[in-house]
Amino acid sequence: MAHPLQALRDAMADYHIDAYLIPTADFHGSEYVGAHFACREYISGFTGSAGTLLVFANWAGLWTDGRYFLQAEEELQGSDIHLMKQGQPGVPTIESFLRGSLQPGQTLGFDGRCVDARTGRRYHSLVRQLGAKLNHQLDLVGEIWAQRPPLSARPAWLLAEEYAGVSRREKLAEIRSTLTAKGSDVLLLTTLEDIGWLLNLRGDDIPHDPVVLSNLVLTRDSCILFANPAAFSPDVLEKLEADGITLRPYENFLPHVSRLTPSQRVQLDTRRVSTTLLTSIPSEVPVNDRPDPTEQRKAVKNPQEIKNMKQAHLADGIALTRFMYWLKTRSEKQTITELSAAARLEDYRREHTLYLQPSFDPILAAGDHSAVVHYSPTPASDRVIGSTGFLLADTGGHYYTGTTDCTRTYALGKLSPEEKTHYTAVLRGNLSLAQVIFPAGCTGSSLDLAARQPLWELGLDFNHGTGHGVGYLLSVHEGPQRIHWRAAERQTPLVPGMITSDEPGLYFDGAYGIRLENLLLCVEKTVTPFGRFLGFEPLTLTPFDLDAVCPEEMRPAERTWLNDYHAKVYQALSPHLPTEEAAWLKAATRPI
Amino acid sequence: MAHPLQALRDAMADYHIDAYLIPTADFHGSEYVGAHFACREYISGFTGSAGTLLVFANWAGLWTDGRYFLQAEEELQGSDIHLMKQGQPGVPTIESFLRGSLQPGQTLGFDGRCVDARTGRRYHSLVRQLGAKLNHQLDLVGEIWAQRPPLSARPAWLLAEEYAGVSRREKLAEIRSTLTAKGSDVLLLTTLEDIGWLLNLRGDDIPHDPVVLSNLVLTRDSCILFANPAAFSPDVLEKLEADGITLRPYENFLPHVSRLTPSQRVQLDTRRVSTTLLTSIPSEVPVNDRPDPTEQRKAVKNPQEIKNMKQAHLADGIALTRFMYWLKTRSEKQTITELSAAARLEDYRREHTLYLQPSFDPILAAGDHSAVVHYSPTPASDRVIGSTGFLLADTGGHYYTGTTDCTRTYALGKLSPEEKTHYTAVLRGNLSLAQVIFPAGCTGSSLDLAARQPLWELGLDFNHGTGHGVGYLLSVHEGPQRIHWRAAERQTPLVPGMITSDEPGLYFDGAYGIRLENLLLCVEKTVTPFGRFLGFEPLTLTPFDLDAVCPEEMRPAERTWLNDYHAKVYQALSPHLPTEEAAWLKAATRPI
Repeated sequence: MAHPLQALRDAMADYHIDAYLIPTADFHGSEYVGAHFACREYISGFTGSAGTLLVFANWAGLWTDGRYFLQAEEELQGSDIHLMKQGQPGVPTIESFLRGSLQPGQTLGFDGRCVDARTGRRYHSLVRQLGAKLNHQLDLVGEIWAQRPPLSARPAWLLAEEYAGVSRREKLAEIRSTLTAKGSDVLLLTTLEDIGWLLNLRGDDIPHDPVVLSNLVLTRDSCILFANPAAFSPDVLEKLEADGITLRPYENFLPHVSRLTPSQRVQLDTRRVSTTLLTSIPSEVPVNDRPDPTEQRKAVKNPQEIKNMKQAHLADGIALTRFMYWLKTRSEKQTITELSAAARLEDYRREHTLYLQPSFDPILAAGDHSAVVHYSPTPASDRVIGSTGFLLADTGGHYYTGTTDCTRTYALGKLSPEEKTHYTAVLRGNLSLAQVIFPAGCTGSSLDLAARQPLWELGLDFNHGTGHGVGYLLSVHEGPQRIHWRAAERQTPLVPGMITSDEPGLYFDGAYGIRLENLLLCVEKTVTPFGRFLGFEPLTLTPFDLDAVCPEEMRPAERTWLNDYHAKVYQALSPHLPTEEAAWLKAATRPI
Repeated sequence: MAHPLQALRDAMADYHIDAYLIPTADFHGSEYVGAHFACREYISGFTGSAGTLLVFANWAGLWTDGRYFLQAEEELQGSDIHLMKQGQPGVPTIESFLRGSLQPGQTLGFDGRCVDARTGRRYHSLVRQLGAKLNHQLDLVGEIWAQRPPLSARPAWLLAEEYAGVSRREKLAEIRSTLTAKGSDVLLLTTLEDIGWLLNLRGDDIPHDPVVLSNLVLTRDSCILFANPAAFSPDVLEKLEADGITLRPYENFLPHVSRLTPSQRVQLDTRRVSTTLLTSIPSEVPVNDRPDPTEQRKAVKNPQEIKNMKQAHLADGIALTRFMYWLKTRSEKQTITELSAAARLEDYRREHTLYLQPSFDPILAAGDHSAVVHYSPTPASDRVIGSTGFLLADTGGHYYTGTTDCTRTYALGKLSPEEKTHYTAVLRGNLSLAQVIFPAGCTGSSLDLAARQPLWELGLDFNHGTGHGVGYLLSVHEGPQRIHWRAAERQTPLVPGMITSDEPGLYFDGAYGIRLENLLLCVEKTVTPFGRFLGFEPLTLTPFDLDAVCPEEMRPAERTWLNDYHAKVYQALSPHLPTEEAAWLKAATRPI
């Protein structure tokens, strides 16, 4: 059999495609994709969670972001695929690259089901400007991928109201009322987390993301869920039907959309629905392009979700702290590796009855692995955790009570003064952001300075966002809010009830990396004649490693913040720990 | 004679205008307007520098921003004009107000020469949506204003190259090369500061803004300046002509534009040219809508301008510090008022041979006047400066060597602990922003947190921007950069050579206000593997009043910043001060 890249090029020649785009995407704009959708990985060999491959007959390039530069370099070695480092000086975007390389009369192709409608439109206008052509109806990888895994159809299940906080009946009523307010008759919802949130429905169709492969069509008096009926037990089905939800086969969704009539105004979000979906709607049907009403509501956790999230973080804090105790007090004779440590941490988490699964591939990175932002150990890469330098552990769990995401970087032995300075600068950034008070209306881009200033002062920086939203037993990365000084296309103010990560880092290629992450709940702080002020409450409960801290490089206020946080950690966790571990925690959270 | 507002309504009836808009604007988008253009003030009585009046037959409203709420409230008293506080909860924008009040078939009118083309387009699309009509060719205030002052025509003069740093010949060549690069044949420039910068031309046609009322048409081989010939001496004219500039009468500009031919591609900035200009261009002429190439170049000062600006700030620092000495050491028996203090400061400035004039109306505000952000004393409002509370002094000068803008708030006697806490919080914000280090690419919106966090922590805030660009012997307020967390329409990264103010404040209606302002020069800091980092160097040289500072409320680092700044102030100024004043300055800049 030909190498996949060659087979793809043969298929491109057959279909007269001169440039073929393969994003990392399923039909739902999911961040992670199921095995069926791993086309970019199948062709390129690059296993990272983000990246776009662009293939010409005699050139191919993979665009990916700063998290994956090192990993992609390694994995692309030996292929003739060029690594295109997004955002680096001199590296063109895919669009400007196409502008310089696609010739008049040539054809750009992609599978329009995997490209959101807004991006699809941009490609359409690009090829028009170039006098080139577009074919967005070709799944060329599907044609050549003999052993392609089928679409996932794992059992769907319902999240009980004690966990979801609000019934699906209430949520449906609220979303329907927004449709009325916006003058829309039909809502097309294709993002799996939004469907999961709206119906209190969960599944297992995407790794780490407990969602059901599905699409949803909501009107004032109907709610049709398009999904594989094999995934639904009679019990689940009965409960959904009792709330007015009708199940139809997954593959009937696009045909349904193509039969919409002009008497109904359709609402959808072109940033999220696919090019194929948008082009399937009859052109005479009026379309209302708006942010999905579920997006903002899902981000603002309800009181029960907040209460549950705090319980999840208590459970997770116990596991993380027991892991830290084990790591920091282990005998030198005991050989542990990244994978065995990950398994140990997973064991601690599993002890909690409400724990379900990791919320993403655990990152346990020793030595220079920690400089690879999204490194995850595999049997091939696994290495012994020694007694020098750092161990970076970025892990999280899904609990019925919510989702966690925590990064700690541990000193494995005595650190150099420079390592301590670097750790302390990252810690100062983490603490400063958590402490910020800001007026309602602020977006994360105005707050990022707090996290980065301690690094910028030293001529240091990190090449990823400082904060992302976190779903409730859904995707560990969700919008719409984020924390990054680079202005996002659409800035969303932080709102009480939102949960956002606070994760500054610092990475030295080939040497070591440091990242420290807590989840922060946005809370009301005060209302004064000058406005309504908001702030954060850290949810994560586990110590920062004091062995890595240089107290004299912290401002007095920063030491107070650290000491206050550690006192809170000790108070929350110690009653739940074995005596010896509680005693150790007392010392690990001592005031400095 | 009828009251102006009634006369306007009569004229509206005559012309079948149902709603008439009067912005604060001349034909050039200037921030301040000459007497001829003070239409909004003439009709409403409100004297602030910003605001838009909207008049219906039986309702009128004045929209203005936070700087002017108190002043407008006072000045509108007794009129039936409603004050519409921009940006306050529940206050509609003018557009949404029109959306709710303009009826189908009604006509909205304004003088299109005073409304920028982009705003004009928005009104146009608004009335179309409402089924209403637009008339942008009516200067109704001109029709009723019997004693309207004529257009200013003060002498034009040339800024010598030792002050401008770069010759007009070089500037013209550079701007022509950008036209070529953008595929444009003709540049239409109507902003007075951009014309002044490009031609090293100055005048006196706008209060505080040494510019010449003019428009400019630049092509590859011609440069036509449209201005009043009476303002040009034979000597000035000869020098301009020697550099290829042709003078034509001001009123010939629009006729010239209306004769442009389709063979030439016209470049202009619809944010800056007027609605009337844009509609005067024949519709078959291709238009390239881009930021004026002069805008960014003018903001980034050249090395000679930077050198000069430092000299201007030394001269200004001497004047400001002598004023402070006089204020702080005056006998209790001596009665001084806001106006007499302003005159005194002006006298100190006048002592420098290169001083020209104030760069804006001096703000000297005692007692609760200091809470009015842009208060300026008048004979009617003038009050005695007592021996309690604060005196806020926001003043600036135009020197041949550049433009200054400085705010200090002085303790007039013993302050209350609360007053000191408030002063110290504002000072901490000022110092923190000046100290920030940031990667190239950052805009001011990412940095504002530094200035505001000390206030936000206390539930305090201020209702104006933290920083604006400053022109070189041009407008004291210039873009494109600014410092404000609220995302601007078009964010511009800070660049070395830009000069931006750093002026956090705090205002308590009816009690007192505090503002502390230095000008900051953006400078290169360091280049590391993590990027190119920039920072600021304060240009302003005069003490912060230590009598108002609460050292124990400052972080150690903040005290160090203040002490370092004060040491620099003493070192720079003391050689230029009389012995007694230098000795006083030593104490006024003592380390705390």
